[in-house]
Amino acid sequence: MYRAPVDEIAFTLKHVAGLQAAIDAGSLGELSEDLVDAILHEAGRFATEEVAPLHGIGDAHGAVLKDAAVTMPPGWKDLYRRWIDGGWNALSGPEEFGGQGLPTMLGVAALEMWNSGSMAFGIGPTLTMGAVEAIEKHASEALKKTYLEKLVSGEWMGTMNLTEPQAGSDLAALRARAEPVGDGTYRVFGQKIFITYGEHDFTDNIVHLVLARLPDAPAGTRGISLFLVPKFFVEEDGSLGARNDVFCSSIEHKLGIHASPTCTMIYGDGFAGGGQPGAIGWLIGEENKGLACMFTMMNNARLAVGMQGVAIAETATQKAIAFANERRQGKATGYDGDGMAPIVHHPDVQRNLLTMKALTAIARAIAYSCAHATDMAHAGGEAGKHWQERANLLTPIAKAFSTDVGVEVASMGVQVHGGMGFIEETGAASLYRDARIAPIYEGTNGIQAIDLVTRKLPQAGGDHVLGYIGELSEVVDALRDSNLDGFGRTADNLEASLKDFLDATLFLQDQVSDGGLQQALAGATPYLRLFALAAGGVYLAKGAIAEKSAGRIALCRFFAENLVGETRALKERVSLGAESLAAAAAALVAA
Amino acid sequence: MYRAPVDEIAFTLKHVAGLQAAIDAGSLGELSEDLVDAILHEAGRFATEEVAPLHGIGDAHGAVLKDAAVTMPPGWKDLYRRWIDGGWNALSGPEEFGGQGLPTMLGVAALEMWNSGSMAFGIGPTLTMGAVEAIEKHASEALKKTYLEKLVSGEWMGTMNLTEPQAGSDLAALRARAEPVGDGTYRVFGQKIFITYGEHDFTDNIVHLVLARLPDAPAGTRGISLFLVPKFFVEEDGSLGARNDVFCSSIEHKLGIHASPTCTMIYGDGFAGGGQPGAIGWLIGEENKGLACMFTMMNNARLAVGMQGVAIAETATQKAIAFANERRQGKATGYDGDGMAPIVHHPDVQRNLLTMKALTAIARAIAYSCAHATDMAHAGGEAGKHWQERANLLTPIAKAFSTDVGVEVASMGVQVHGGMGFIEETGAASLYRDARIAPIYEGTNGIQAIDLVTRKLPQAGGDHVLGYIGELSEVVDALRDSNLDGFGRTADNLEASLKDFLDATLFLQDQVSDGGLQQALAGATPYLRLFALAAGGVYLAKGAIAEKSAGRIALCRFFAENLVGETRALKERVSLGAESLAAAAAALVAA
Repeated sequence: MYRAPVDEIAFTLKHVAGLQAAIDAGSLGELSEDLVDAILHEAGRFATEEVAPLHGIGDAHGAVLKDAAVTMPPGWKDLYRRWIDGGWNALSGPEEFGGQGLPTMLGVAALEMWNSGSMAFGIGPTLTMGAVEAIEKHASEALKKTYLEKLVSGEWMGTMNLTEPQAGSDLAALRARAEPVGDGTYRVFGQKIFITYGEHDFTDNIVHLVLARLPDAPAGTRGISLFLVPKFFVEEDGSLGARNDVFCSSIEHKLGIHASPTCTMIYGDGFAGGGQPGAIGWLIGEENKGLACMFTMMNNARLAVGMQGVAIAETATQKAIAFANERRQGKATGYDGDGMAPIVHHPDVQRNLLTMKALTAIARAIAYSCAHATDMAHAGGEAGKHWQERANLLTPIAKAFSTDVGVEVASMGVQVHGGMGFIEETGAASLYRDARIAPIYEGTNGIQAIDLVTRKLPQAGGDHVLGYIGELSEVVDALRDSNLDGFGRTADNLEASLKDFLDATLFLQDQVSDGGLQQALAGATPYLRLFALAAGGVYLAKGAIAEKSAGRIALCRFFAENLVGETRALKERVSLGAESLAAAAAALVAA
Repeated sequence: MYRAPVDEIAFTLKHVAGLQAAIDAGSLGELSEDLVDAILHEAGRFATEEVAPLHGIGDAHGAVLKDAAVTMPPGWKDLYRRWIDGGWNALSGPEEFGGQGLPTMLGVAALEMWNSGSMAFGIGPTLTMGAVEAIEKHASEALKKTYLEKLVSGEWMGTMNLTEPQAGSDLAALRARAEPVGDGTYRVFGQKIFITYGEHDFTDNIVHLVLARLPDAPAGTRGISLFLVPKFFVEEDGSLGARNDVFCSSIEHKLGIHASPTCTMIYGDGFAGGGQPGAIGWLIGEENKGLACMFTMMNNARLAVGMQGVAIAETATQKAIAFANERRQGKATGYDGDGMAPIVHHPDVQRNLLTMKALTAIARAIAYSCAHATDMAHAGGEAGKHWQERANLLTPIAKAFSTDVGVEVASMGVQVHGGMGFIEETGAASLYRDARIAPIYEGTNGIQAIDLVTRKLPQAGGDHVLGYIGELSEVVDALRDSNLDGFGRTADNLEASLKDFLDATLFLQDQVSDGGLQQALAGATPYLRLFALAAGGVYLAKGAIAEKSAGRIALCRFFAENLVGETRALKERVSLGAESLAAAAAALVAA
């Protein structure tokens, strides 16, 4: 069973990702270390004692649709109620509407824990947060007044309606339409698919944010507008009125996150009865600028999904280590107890467990560093701009690498359990199933890699990422200067990986700026992994230098002497692999 | 939907794995190329048209236990009947008992196709074949006469009963016991778990092979005997008699292969009623030599599981390529048709698909080469010994690498499908679920790697594997001499990977022979992958040289310029990684 690793989370936040320095410099207002510790401790308790125990029930029962209503698994509605009563939904919400306005760093640390407890639970509020952000930044005062307080507290939940059957990664293909009624509202029509928490019984009302086209809108992404469509209308006094014409027509039968209802939503088919069909919606932001409204919250949503990868990896690692300490098979050097040795003493099992542990640690370090940059970006000015670029740079890594790690580590976790891993009741399999969606949704990992290479590497004329690599090199210098024992060849290996990182970066920057876009696209995915491994190794070193503990030094060295060497092959794949890829790809196209 | 890749299978058998040369040299008796083609074609038809269409039903319904009886999914019993009526179970069975006695190469090629159609279907007969082999080689004439013909035809099925709750990888811990009755039979008692096809309605009788201890047996693996325990006794005239005291008490709720009943079997609890409890069994082979009897069929069973990895990878790749040709999103260079481009035109998708294709091809080449060695080993004499060593060497690679590839490729397959990949009805998810057991059962992949390093590398004083690497080098020389266009840097890169392979091999041989067992155990898993990638690249080259086609050359080059470079990092992990692993592992052990 999951136990929230509160100390590890706190350490990574403070000493790897930069929270301690930010607190000390007063960059985060009046936030104190004590408050941080208290919040993490309490969130850890809730995730461990309240969320995690309901994961298995959620997975087994799933969400159930009947007569357009979705019933959540037994105990889940109460769980959600206790969770919002604890103020957790409001953690990083705006203070003006009842939120606690705490930094993103704390928000993602808590999010990691909810998702470790149960990813199907953690995903719901993430959507609400996205809706809060979009409304806060772009909606009219009237809409804010009506909706924000209840969305911040969690009394109502929010959803994001982008995808249609023909429009997934390519939103230019959207067809949902909105017609002006004449009174400032719109009638929205269309079908949206894969709508997470589109319908459920957690809350009395659900606030849908929906992308749709106005009648005279230009084609493509410049003709998309964003609408707020409540499930129930809200009366002047705040009470709920009539049912709007939006309904869930089906929920998906999925590989994982069974308790998260993935809905097909039908807008404007007249199911609500009464007058004219059409789901009544209110415009958020300007006409035809809906995608820009969505993009303002995209970074945070992507980081949130990245946390799911970290979360699953953490739970899978804990579970595998616990099992390996209990399960006994065979003899092992280094075990001198009675009978068969716990399998944790077998070097091959140790390799799996340490790989899981190291990958989880670097994914977490990258994600928290991304959150730190987001928090620092609020400063504004030159410094704010710098940190926003850093957040932009790290977001695709935090999303894609962490979720790939989630899948890899969950798979290794099943393996460590042997035959028991394949039995559903053991629980390792549910992590392997749940993990698999995170590399797909909120922009597939391929799209993250393309975003990284084509939009993030060119930031600041290409200098931003080079400055980042320079900062990482300084940590390696500090490691050499530290004279700490136990690092072995860590400094040399990390330095070599940073050289690979730099070479590949310069190569791709040249391609992007100089007509080699196909080469850049072909190298994007291996580059993203190279970036993460090279940076991740340095983050482990940073933590090890800060704490000077044998355990952290040993894990860093294991990573540097066993895992980071992959960067060389990745660099070659980036810089030398595109031509053969193009040559071989011809055979893939159906005649 | 799966279409058996009959031409690709035939090509790999003949021109990569050595079937053509063996036919031409008369090493396989009267086997002709025409017969090979006819069998592959017909097996492909059956797998495509009969097995594959029932996969989804099998996955959704699963096997159902009620009152100790297991009902297979709708249509499956008829499918099995048509399959044995087609003579497929008897394909490589001994001719003396009605089998066709065809080479292992054909057996595994057919097995690949059944498993591609549905892995839960393919696994059942694999167990029967194992039972046939054990009985043929070790049982008395009387037992052969009673059981073999019906097991060869498939009228009855067989099972293997090794695992107990405390004894998985470590069979020394077995507790099931057998007491001599005095009339040549034994009463068997105990609980066996994870028994594949332990109970079902495919056949009227089921023949269990069971490992158990005699009362006076020594402890450990030298005190284990093998018994044949039929579900129903067989009368003198071959008809079925009374029920034996062996029952299925439960079936597992598993991540995948839902239609394969994974049973807990209870021996000797007296459920059959009547007289004294105890499941009546007959000894196979000598007392206390049961493990040796099991080991004679272990190689083939491991290769059979390896074929499941190849099979899943093939199906996943086909499915992903088909989807990528249909699904349209965005624009792509190289697509000049109307509207959005099929995603197969996006370089990042191409990278996934080509990686899937190349990994599948090399896993298949290795597995078929292993089968070829098994066939050639029947020659006896020095040549036979050489080929048996080759089969021994390649078996752990065929098992472990192929099944790892099955998981990797199935996961990439889900990814290529985007959101649809997470929806069960799409079918990509079931491959991801099914694939996950193959690295675990029939000896976990970690155990395969340890077997490779500690038992197979030392064969022939260490010379066998070195000779194998030498043969691979000759193929690279032939590639250089071929003057074929389109290979790019293939020869250089394959040569470098063979150098890594050689270096790592020599390093591990030294460790094993010179007191460095812990180092060898720590490096086993990365070494196995290194071996497979280096050898696999050469097999692709061998095929490309033989066919001289642009497609095969391009895929080989893609592999050589994008994937084989991983061997360098793997070599370093093998030779330099153990010390840091040991240092970091201390933290894994629970206090």
